[in-house]
Amino acid sequence: MTEFDFIQSILAPLARGASGAAGLRDDVAELPQRADARLIVSTDQMSAGIHYLRSAPLHKVAQKLLRRNISDIVAKGGQPFAYQLAIAWPRGSDLAPLRDFAEGLADDQQLYDIHLTGGDCAAILGPAHFSVTMFGWVGARGPVRRAGVKPGDVIVVTGPIGDAGLGLQLAQGARIAPAPIAEALIARHETPAPPVTLGPLIARFATGAIDISDGLIADLRQLAIASTTSITMDLAQVPLSAQARGVLGDEAGSLDALRWLASAGDDYQIALGIAPADLNDFTAAAAQLGYAITPIGGASAARSSEHLQLLFCGAPIASTGGGYQHFSGQG
Amino acid sequence: MTEFDFIQSILAPLARGASGAAGLRDDVAELPQRADARLIVSTDQMSAGIHYLRSAPLHKVAQKLLRRNISDIVAKGGQPFAYQLAIAWPRGSDLAPLRDFAEGLADDQQLYDIHLTGGDCAAILGPAHFSVTMFGWVGARGPVRRAGVKPGDVIVVTGPIGDAGLGLQLAQGARIAPAPIAEALIARHETPAPPVTLGPLIARFATGAIDISDGLIADLRQLAIASTTSITMDLAQVPLSAQARGVLGDEAGSLDALRWLASAGDDYQIALGIAPADLNDFTAAAAQLGYAITPIGGASAARSSEHLQLLFCGAPIASTGGGYQHFSGQG
Repeated sequence: MTEFDFIQSILAPLARGASGAAGLRDDVAELPQRADARLIVSTDQMSAGIHYLRSAPLHKVAQKLLRRNISDIVAKGGQPFAYQLAIAWPRGSDLAPLRDFAEGLADDQQLYDIHLTGGDCAAILGPAHFSVTMFGWVGARGPVRRAGVKPGDVIVVTGPIGDAGLGLQLAQGARIAPAPIAEALIARHETPAPPVTLGPLIARFATGAIDISDGLIADLRQLAIASTTSITMDLAQVPLSAQARGVLGDEAGSLDALRWLASAGDDYQIALGIAPADLNDFTAAAAQLGYAITPIGGASAARSSEHLQLLFCGAPIASTGGGYQHFSGQG
Repeated sequence: MTEFDFIQSILAPLARGASGAAGLRDDVAELPQRADARLIVSTDQMSAGIHYLRSAPLHKVAQKLLRRNISDIVAKGGQPFAYQLAIAWPRGSDLAPLRDFAEGLADDQQLYDIHLTGGDCAAILGPAHFSVTMFGWVGARGPVRRAGVKPGDVIVVTGPIGDAGLGLQLAQGARIAPAPIAEALIARHETPAPPVTLGPLIARFATGAIDISDGLIADLRQLAIASTTSITMDLAQVPLSAQARGVLGDEAGSLDALRWLASAGDDYQIALGIAPADLNDFTAAAAQLGYAITPIGGASAARSSEHLQLLFCGAPIASTGGGYQHFSGQG
């Protein structure tokens, strides 16, 4: 199969809904512009052996890649609508697995109402590598920035933390659990579910926001740094899923477990600052969409020494590094 | 150096001119929208050992990566203005060479008046890999599509063909030449110079267009297929640079050499369809900008068997495959 055949048979169907994509038969795509919305863009990449297990089915890799980007868009109060895709595939390898990859793209395109607009394909000397640049619309106020958190804000998260970390351990055999629980948690690792319908509420209520990809602790620290506040979080308030509690048993409430769960990353939930006066309205509106909003702490005026203060049941604890370091590849 | 430090010290200065980039301190960038122009986007990637020699200085790799994308934008009649960048770097490798990469980005940002808006950094298990998604503006008619070429159009190219192919051979030691000639041709391979100021003239005059990256023969065939025309090109009319003639000597005018030069790729010139009535105006306007436009053939109604007919001094010759196959990685 040549590149041209691959693009036309496998990828072009994914671009049918995007008129500016020109059927992937051209060098550029045209993106729509809107007078009533602002245009935002995020880029994320996934590489075999680093961002996914080589044994992972490629349709799930495709979905995770899209959802990582969708998470960025939603965290800023936006709605994704289109993406560019760069595929780099080991030279000489069979292209057939990329059909499975394209099926994952197709499934998520339907689920999230997004379309492929264009991209690039290349053979490379390393393992498979994929990069997506995702486009989204936000309202007239523009993207909800990390920097917007204000002293006095309540810090909330949009869903359970640590499921993906447990799912990775289960997928790697480092932990065991009954099949239904294991499958649910592995699914959270393989195909995270960012709270995509929350975008408009985030745009309306959030002062500042970040999606939780590197670990709750690391990302809260980034949120605090960007907003020049100090954030205090009580690990005992971090919401866990029923499946996580099922796997962890008595361990679930321990400081060590909570700190680990809050460092594991790949959650693709969102941490938000909310003005106290808005908390009830936001929580109620989110509940109507099926999301359980959990307050986990608050922001205050920046202290010189520390952007993030961790508590456990109200008592201060030492804050260790934690969080995924992209360039070192170590947890 | 952590990812955060790397981004803030090395990459953030490249985003200073893009207000929507938020200093690379957020998950998304905001892109501008314009009522008087349409927005186009292209994606291209480069991987060590495939798209550049591992010995190549990274600032030149950065420039080539940007220019490959700029070439796509210009070929469609557009003007580039911003880009997203994904850097994938071998895990555990020293990050210091990326300073050199960033210097190449900075040089070309100044040269082309473009800005970094955002992106992603990751450590990977393979060789260095870079992906750029470039944004450009085109006028109200929209991008000049490949599909726009009409029967009767003259087919022209915007500059010499084959320099980059010769430059690669010289860089690899497969060919030798006096130093000034070798340096000039290696520079064409390492840092192509797309005809960036031609964008508005292309938008005004071209019926259809493609940038020449995979080789003139291969790209003309794509142009013919997309426009459902047949294109006839006379290899004897393909323009060569003085340096190419210097390296090739008597060989320069031979069919074999011309066919090879027209298959070598990486030219980043543009092949255009021009209505015969516009040819003089386009050529004169381009000459004022310093570009020598060369007619190399013409388009006619599609023939069933063949989209591209090659001539040599007016006599038909067999058209062989040729052109870079991205997924097989073979010429």
